[in-house]
Amino acid sequence: MTHLSAERLHEFARRVFAAHGVPPADAAQAADVLLCADLRGIDSHGVVRLSAYAANLATGRFNPRPNITVLRRTPATARLDGDNGLGLVVGPWANALAAELAESAGTGWVSVGNSTHFGIAGYYVLECVKRGLIGWAMTNAANIVVAHGGAERVLGTNPIAVGVPAGNEHPVVIDLATSAAAYGKLDLARRRGEPIPDGWLIDSDGRPSREPAAFQAGGALLPLGGHKGYCLAALVDLLCGPLSGANWGPYVPPFLVPPLANAPSVGRGLGHLFGSMRVDAFIESDEFTRQVDAWVQRLRASRPAPDVAAVLIPGDPERRAETERRANGIPLPPTVIAELERTGREAGVPFA
Amino acid sequence: MTHLSAERLHEFARRVFAAHGVPPADAAQAADVLLCADLRGIDSHGVVRLSAYAANLATGRFNPRPNITVLRRTPATARLDGDNGLGLVVGPWANALAAELAESAGTGWVSVGNSTHFGIAGYYVLECVKRGLIGWAMTNAANIVVAHGGAERVLGTNPIAVGVPAGNEHPVVIDLATSAAAYGKLDLARRRGEPIPDGWLIDSDGRPSREPAAFQAGGALLPLGGHKGYCLAALVDLLCGPLSGANWGPYVPPFLVPPLANAPSVGRGLGHLFGSMRVDAFIESDEFTRQVDAWVQRLRASRPAPDVAAVLIPGDPERRAETERRANGIPLPPTVIAELERTGREAGVPFA
Repeated sequence: MTHLSAERLHEFARRVFAAHGVPPADAAQAADVLLCADLRGIDSHGVVRLSAYAANLATGRFNPRPNITVLRRTPATARLDGDNGLGLVVGPWANALAAELAESAGTGWVSVGNSTHFGIAGYYVLECVKRGLIGWAMTNAANIVVAHGGAERVLGTNPIAVGVPAGNEHPVVIDLATSAAAYGKLDLARRRGEPIPDGWLIDSDGRPSREPAAFQAGGALLPLGGHKGYCLAALVDLLCGPLSGANWGPYVPPFLVPPLANAPSVGRGLGHLFGSMRVDAFIESDEFTRQVDAWVQRLRASRPAPDVAAVLIPGDPERRAETERRANGIPLPPTVIAELERTGREAGVPFA
Repeated sequence: MTHLSAERLHEFARRVFAAHGVPPADAAQAADVLLCADLRGIDSHGVVRLSAYAANLATGRFNPRPNITVLRRTPATARLDGDNGLGLVVGPWANALAAELAESAGTGWVSVGNSTHFGIAGYYVLECVKRGLIGWAMTNAANIVVAHGGAERVLGTNPIAVGVPAGNEHPVVIDLATSAAAYGKLDLARRRGEPIPDGWLIDSDGRPSREPAAFQAGGALLPLGGHKGYCLAALVDLLCGPLSGANWGPYVPPFLVPPLANAPSVGRGLGHLFGSMRVDAFIESDEFTRQVDAWVQRLRASRPAPDVAAVLIPGDPERRAETERRANGIPLPPTVIAELERTGREAGVPFA
C-alpha cells in the first residue's frame, strides 16, 4: 500500500477533471466529493473511480459542461435536468438548492434526472449538516441487485443517507446501501479468495452462493434482509427514477462499462433525490441539538454485546477513518496507483 | 379461529373507544386505523391491541379528548403536540396536515410529539396515496431492540412506510419495521414452540439466540441486517423524538404495560414524522404514474428464484390479505375473542 495525502490526490483529481474539459470550479467540486469518500474510508467510491469518470468524459458519454436546468419548482420542491453532467457536479448543485428551499420554506426536496454517478451519498448530507440542516440523499444505480424472491438483476444498490446535526457531539451520519453488502466488499473477498457470508449473493441460477466469483458468472447481490431491503431499494428507485424523469431499475445506465448499443431506455440518465429540513422549522434548534447530544451519549454508553468494545454511533466508523487518513494519508494498492498513473498520462496530468 | 367481518369489528372498536370518552368522529377514526391493520394481515396491530388502548384510556394514561395544537409552522412544515391523545387520532390529524401542506407548498413534513401508539404506518401513507400524493410515515416505539453491537434494549422497532401512487396498477406500499423481525413473529414462534431464524434475537447476555422465550428472559430484538438496520432505527428515532419534543430511545413509554413509577423521561410521550409530496410539484402526474405502472409491470415480470412463483411488488402481500379478508372475514384465535369479550364487558359494549 502507498499512502498519499488527500490534498495531493485532490489536486490530481481536479486536474484530471479539468483536462477533460470540466470548468475549474466544477473540477474542484468533483474532486471534493471523491476525496470525501477516500477520507471516510469508502474506498469503492473515491479516487479508485477517477479512471471511470475520466473514461466517460473522454468518450463523450458524460457532458463536462452541463447546463443544469430547473424544470419545475414550487416553494419547497424542484426538479432538475442534469444535462448528462458529472453526478459529482450535478448532485452538489441540486443538494444546495434543496438546502436553499429548506432555508426559505422549512423543507426542500429536489429530484434530479439526466444525471450520472454522484459518488457517496454521505457527502451530500454532510453539506447540509454544515449549514445546520438535516440532510437526505438518495440515488438509483445500475442494476446488480435482485428483487426479493427474484433471480434477475433489476435494482441498484440504491443508497439512502441522512445527516442529523448535533450540538457538542459529532453529527449522526447514516449512509447505507439497500443491498445486503456493498459491491466493494464482494470484490474485496473475490480478490482475496475468501468466501462471503450467507445472504449476500445468488448465482446465475438464483441459488444462494458464498462464492464471490458467482457474481461475475451472472449472479446478483441480494437486498438487505430480503423483503425489507427490497422495499427500501424500490422506494429509492421510484423516487429517483419516475419522480425525476430518469431511468429506473434495469434501465439505469451502467457506470463502469459502456452501455450496450441500443440499450432500452425509459428516461434520461439516472436520478437522485435530495431533501433538506431546517431544524427550527420544527423545534428550537438549541433544544434539538441538546437532545441529539443526549441521544448520542446514551446510545454510546449502552451495554455492548460480548466481545464488542463499545456501541458505535452511525457515522463513527467513517469519522474515525477520516481522522486516521488525514494524519497518515489514504492507502492505495499498487493496482490503483497504476491505474491513476495511466489516467494521468491519458489526461496529460502527471501523477508523480 | 373465528372469522368476523371487518364491519362488525369496526363497529365494536368504535363503540369501545366511544365508551371510554373518545368523541364519535375520533372513535370512528381510531377504529379505521385498527381495522386497516386487520384487513391487511398485520394482526399484531389490529383489534388484538384494542384491549391495550382501552386499558390505557380507562386508567387515564391516554387522553380521550386531546387538544391537538400546532406549536410551530412554516409553509411546508409543522410541529404538533398530540396532548397525549390516542396515536390513532393524533396520527391521522397530523398526516392530513402534511398532505395539506404538500398541496399548497409542494411537500409537507409534520413532526408530532406527546403522542401514543399510532397503529400501522401503512395506514397513513395509503391516506396520502388516496389523495394522489406520495406519503411518508414513521414513528418511534418502546425499546425492545439493541443497537448494532449492543446488548441493551435502546431502540424501538421504529417503522418506516412510504406509499407511491400508480396509474392503472395498484399503488406501491412500503411498510417495514427496522428490526430484523417484528415482535409479532417472535411471539407467534414462542406460542407455537418453534425456534426462530438466526439474526432475530439475542439473549440477556447479548449472545445470539434461536429460542423465542429468550426475549421475555431479558433478551432483545436485533436490528435489520445489523449496522444498517440500526442506522435506520436511529434515523427514525432522531426524527420522531428530538425533532418533535417526544421521548426517544430507551425513554419511549411502553404501550402494553404501565410504565414504571418515576420512569425517566426526556420529552413528552412518543413521536411521529409524516411527510407528503405532491407528484406534480416534481413532474407531470400522468408521466409519473405511467412510469410507476411500467415499473410495477417490469418488476413483476422479472425472473423469479427457484421455488418462487413470482416476484411480488411491495404492498402485494397486504393487498392480497385484504381481498381475502374482505371476502371471508378476519380470523381471530379464541384467546383474542375472549380478550375482546372482556374489553367489551369492561366498556359496557356487548361483543356478541
